[in-house]
Amino acid sequence: MTDAKWLNDEQLVVWTRFVAVLQLFPAALDAQLERDAQLTHFEYFTLAMLSEAPQRTMRMTALAGFTTASLARLSRVVSNLEKRGYAKRQPCPEDRRATNVTLTQDGWQKVVATAPGHVDLVRSIVIDTLTAEELTQLSTISAKLLSKLDPQARMVATARSQTPPPV
Amino acid sequence: MTDAKWLNDEQLVVWTRFVAVLQLFPAALDAQLERDAQLTHFEYFTLAMLSEAPQRTMRMTALAGFTTASLARLSRVVSNLEKRGYAKRQPCPEDRRATNVTLTQDGWQKVVATAPGHVDLVRSIVIDTLTAEELTQLSTISAKLLSKLDPQARMVATARSQTPPPV
Repeated sequence: MTDAKWLNDEQLVVWTRFVAVLQLFPAALDAQLERDAQLTHFEYFTLAMLSEAPQRTMRMTALAGFTTASLARLSRVVSNLEKRGYAKRQPCPEDRRATNVTLTQDGWQKVVATAPGHVDLVRSIVIDTLTAEELTQLSTISAKLLSKLDPQARMVATARSQTPPPV
Repeated sequence: MTDAKWLNDEQLVVWTRFVAVLQLFPAALDAQLERDAQLTHFEYFTLAMLSEAPQRTMRMTALAGFTTASLARLSRVVSNLEKRGYAKRQPCPEDRRATNVTLTQDGWQKVVATAPGHVDLVRSIVIDTLTAEELTQLSTISAKLLSKLDPQARMVATARSQTPPPV
């Protein structure tokens, strides 16, 4: 444990705290959404992404990229959302080999009904807990972590956090 | 969407970035550990907690608290670790109704063999990516988030991040 590559005490404290956040936060998001809307956070995130897309429609491959899910996992999730009437898959008109997924009117209403309670949770844990300065720090830190976690900037958050390349 | 309770643009950027980190980081931890050690991050975390406990032994209820897993989930995980020879459950000598779980010698060697590669990943994504100042900021921010995510300080990281109450 005296390897130069080991974490020192300070680094270990940062990591231990942060890994606890990584473990507890997703569970808290799932718990609130399952209790209030019978949705996992991943399902809510999928519906929310569709709600912001033009015509509330995305290609499955693009949605998989944005959510960084495998197509297999996303297919299972979308299939469940379809059964509940929140989304609908159909062949892409421009490319019959591709599949589009569209948020239905019921899906849109589900997002509208679910968002306020979800925002309340995010607010109570993050936004109202940190100072304005800490929020800015968290934003910068997250962008740096995303540069390693998502080097190809497939996720919206990563893409938005990078300046466009010079033309 | 003009509700005063809604997130403003700056808050939305912080949250969108941070939620991407929450989604991608656990997947990256799982991927590295499954590839290199055929362990999920939760399994590794469980073994690592045991490796630091006195006599490498903890009560199942205490371990569930530290990992913030339900007893049912932890039982499944420990059962898998037992089958692979890394852990062993037995009745607690002081309280026969309670169950202890002990890291075996094979389990200890698994932690020792797995830790360096795992630390390399943590180092490459977090420690070497952030400045010393940002690491300190992340530590403070994580402690504040844990005060909301784990108000009873059941997790080691939370307990360590709080000063002891005055006697």
